[in-house]
Amino acid sequence: MAKNLDISLLLDFYGSMLTQKQREMTEYYYNDDLSLAEIAENEGITRQGVRDSIKRGEAQLFDMEDRLGLLARFHRVQEGIQTIAEAAQNIQQANERFVYSREITASVEEILKIAHELAE
Amino acid sequence: MAKNLDISLLLDFYGSMLTQKQREMTEYYYNDDLSLAEIAENEGITRQGVRDSIKRGEAQLFDMEDRLGLLARFHRVQEGIQTIAEAAQNIQQANERFVYSREITASVEEILKIAHELAE
Repeated sequence: MAKNLDISLLLDFYGSMLTQKQREMTEYYYNDDLSLAEIAENEGITRQGVRDSIKRGEAQLFDMEDRLGLLARFHRVQEGIQTIAEAAQNIQQANERFVYSREITASVEEILKIAHELAE
Repeated sequence: MAKNLDISLLLDFYGSMLTQKQREMTEYYYNDDLSLAEIAENEGITRQGVRDSIKRGEAQLFDMEDRLGLLARFHRVQEGIQTIAEAAQNIQQANERFVYSREITASVEEILKIAHELAE
């Protein structure tokens, strides 16, 4: 069973839509890197039972993303924020090279602070 | 039945989680401003049936927001983007007042363009 690394992000967004058991097992597998056999032993069910449960959880996460597109939106915002931060750094370099305006520096710092907050 | 104006935004985000009929009736009511009686006539069901269906739809939209918090996240990003755009405009004012750097103007324009795109 190949691990899909986007699943961790999908779990962040849509984990609350899974049943508690399903969510726990999917998190053990994807976030905590436990093996199917380890999860099976902890949960007291078969390895195949764990596998089926995680597969159903994954399918539901992908279905949620198809419907709501939250991960795609997240990536789009992250890219925009990254480009904004780079432009702000270019402004500060030009500001330091040509004329040192404290107003420009303060506004650049504000942009970088918000970009950092939004990137979380 | 008081209209809750956040419902239109919640419909944008989570409408795909409702049944098609439920979604249509909720959109007629909240986005197209049809009355319960008008929707009932169009759909060939009772006014009370429309009302119940919309109430169930609303409850599901609020439940989705409780679980996923997409509207809250959207508002937070919008506020951040708005503050970034204002800071970029301050930079441009200082740039025009002190020294006219074309590099700074170009970077400000890039920030404003992305802020505008992300605000949609």
